[in-house]
Order: sequence, then C-alpha cells, then structure tokens
Amino acid sequence: MRIGVLGTGMVGQALASRLVETGHDVVMGSRDAANEKAAAWLATQPERAGTGTFADAAAHGEVVLNATGGAVTLDVLRLAGADNLAGKVLIDVSNPMKPDSGFPPKLDPVGDDSLAERIQREFPTARVVKTLNTMNCDVMADPSLLPGEHDVFMAGEDAAAKETVRSLLRGFGWPDALIRDLGGITAARGLEMYLIFWIGLRVSLGHNAFNIHVVT
Amino acid sequence: MRIGVLGTGMVGQALASRLVETGHDVVMGSRDAANEKAAAWLATQPERAGTGTFADAAAHGEVVLNATGGAVTLDVLRLAGADNLAGKVLIDVSNPMKPDSGFPPKLDPVGDDSLAERIQREFPTARVVKTLNTMNCDVMADPSLLPGEHDVFMAGEDAAAKETVRSLLRGFGWPDALIRDLGGITAARGLEMYLIFWIGLRVSLGHNAFNIHVVT
Repeated sequence: MRIGVLGTGMVGQALASRLVETGHDVVMGSRDAANEKAAAWLATQPERAGTGTFADAAAHGEVVLNATGGAVTLDVLRLAGADNLAGKVLIDVSNPMKPDSGFPPKLDPVGDDSLAERIQREFPTARVVKTLNTMNCDVMADPSLLPGEHDVFMAGEDAAAKETVRSLLRGFGWPDALIRDLGGITAARGLEMYLIFWIGLRVSLGHNAFNIHVVT
Repeated sequence: MRIGVLGTGMVGQALASRLVETGHDVVMGSRDAANEKAAAWLATQPERAGTGTFADAAAHGEVVLNATGGAVTLDVLRLAGADNLAGKVLIDVSNPMKPDSGFPPKLDPVGDDSLAERIQREFPTARVVKTLNTMNCDVMADPSLLPGEHDVFMAGEDAAAKETVRSLLRGFGWPDALIRDLGGITAARGLEMYLIFWIGLRVSLGHNAFNIHVVT
C-alpha cells in the first residue's frame, strides 16, 4: 500500500520503518523536503521508500499517518493539504500534549473534545482513525517486544477505514482479537486522556516498555 | 480496623460489605441517619456493622472511604466534618463525572486538577489516597471475579496511608505486586481521566466485568 507518514520524530521513524518492513511503499513527509532526519532515515531504507514535504507524503499515500506532535498536528495537516487528504484513511497516532505544560503535562483539547475530533471536523472527507497513541512507539511498531497478550485500541467513524487500519496493525504483529474497536471518533477522548494515566505508569515503572491487556 | 464508608450506592454497598467480610468494623454513612438503603444494607450484616450520618461514619473510622458520586463528594466531606477527617486515611474511590453531561460524559475537574487534589486541598490534614476508581465495584471488592492477573492503582502524598490502603486491598484479594503506586496525588488526574477510556471499553465489550493488566 502507498502510505504517507507525516513526521520525522521517533514515532514517525519507528512506524515508517515498520511499514516499509511489512511491505508498504512509504514517503516520509516533513516541513522541509531537505529535512536531515528524513534523509538519514531514507538512507537506511530500501528503494521503494522516499521523503518529501508534508504535501508530497500526503499526495503519495492511499493512507496518511499523522505522527507529528499534537500541538502542531493541525498546522501540519493544513500544509499536507485538504485535497491530498480527501477521501483517504487518516491514521492519527498523536497525543495533544501542551508543550512546556509542567508535570504532569496538560492536554489541549481535553474533556469535551479531542484532537482526533478536531482533525475530523477540519477535514470532513478524511476518514480519521485514532489508534496506537496509548503506548511507546517501539511497542506500536512491534508488539512482540512485550511478552504475552496486550492490546491496541482504535476509534473512528468509518468502518472500512478501521478495517484498513486493522490490516496494517495485523501486519505489525497485532493479533486481530487484541485490536479493540472502541467505536466512533468521540472515543478518541478516552484514548487521548489515557496519556496522563500512561505517564503515571511510566514514572512508576521507570521505563516505557509496557502496555496494557484488557482482562475479562 | 474501624472504617467509615460514605455513600449508600452500589459502590458504597459493595465495599462496605467486603470490608465487613474481611474483618473490619464498618459504619455506613449517609445524609440522613434513617436512610433506607443503609438500613437495608445493615440488615444483611453481622452485629459489628452500623449506619449513621456522614459525620457519624467519619467519626467512627480510623479510615474513611469516600464512595459518593464525584459531583457531591466535597459537600459530603463537609457534612462529614473536617474534624472527623483530620489525620485520617481518606480513601477516595469516586469519579468526578458531571451529571447529565451527555455521552461520553464529561469530568469536572479535568486536565489541570483532579477531585482527589481538591479533596486534599480542602482537607489538608486528611491523608488522601485515590484508588479503585478504575473498575466496576464488584471487581474492586473481589478481584478473583476475573481470571488471571489484573491491577489496581493508587496515588497520594502519604506513604504510611498508602501502606494502610495496600493492606486493605490485600484483604480484598489484590496481590501485592498488582497494587501499583503511581506516586503523589497529582497522579490522580490520570486515574480520573482513565474513566473516559474505561467507558469506551465498557461500550465496546458490552459489560463491565473487566479490568486491565499492565504488561512489561
């Protein structure tokens, strides 16, 4: 599948690499087509990977994956261009953490809205799916890093888009039964607020190599 | 141990019953000492259990457990009386859900404060511990209802108070290794925001007999 990954940080690099590894044709997008982190990433990838602007990456993708920081996500998607997102599956793995907001960090929005909903409202024909934001990026990309069963969640309005996401996640190694669909896009509120709980666990454990399993 | 349980709802009843069952001397408190739900509860309990006003229950307890709805908690604690809470372990299991706030429900406070912190600020000599609010009350009281390992969390400023809570939780059947201390009282923000994630799971699963296990 052709996938545009927006963002050159740890999350973008981990997911873009794993997407290439699992057979996809990936363009990593950044603000500047000459971005050094993107170039360094590309040097480690096979020929079918590429880099470009946010708009290049979004135009390339049948699926577009937002791996930018939540505070800049809407600006990045505007640079990617509404035309390049129209009708596409738009995977949002970001967390809307306010920069320099102290400890524990603050979210914006929080409570009666979510970043995923803001994205869906501003790009109404994009088929937004929130997923993967509830864990460290190494675990996102390769769930076999942790022992036993643990789970990934998703939320979004478009059932076919969620099936596409499910298929990509299965490619990463997520068992179908542990990919939990929490419903429509408003369920992204809980997935984003979960970050603050995750940070409590992160501090308590002293590392970020963890996830949760829903026990029934 | 002498324990005052504030609240006669499902959570208060489940926890008060389990505390009696695990050997404690419990008074269930309500707004009106003649509360019918409290009287019905008492009729099912051995002689060492009792009922009374919020102030009676708080005066009785070496430990006071708040099992009232988050929207009324501060009013209830004022009725219980600052003098009756001074120096005591105050276990807060409530969630600050705004009544009639739609779906998903809203929290108040949310983001830069928590109900547990509000309680701690208003009753500074009480030793507040947030715990158990991340699951259904049947699972709170008896973790063996679910198979295998699953976890309970706590947050608070007072290490000795958290040891007391740990001991009560062990009495309910929680294994020591699965009682996870997330740190100071600000960690209650994540525990309270987790409710909205929990509601997503609740809807997705179609029942509330679940919890999570942290996998490392």
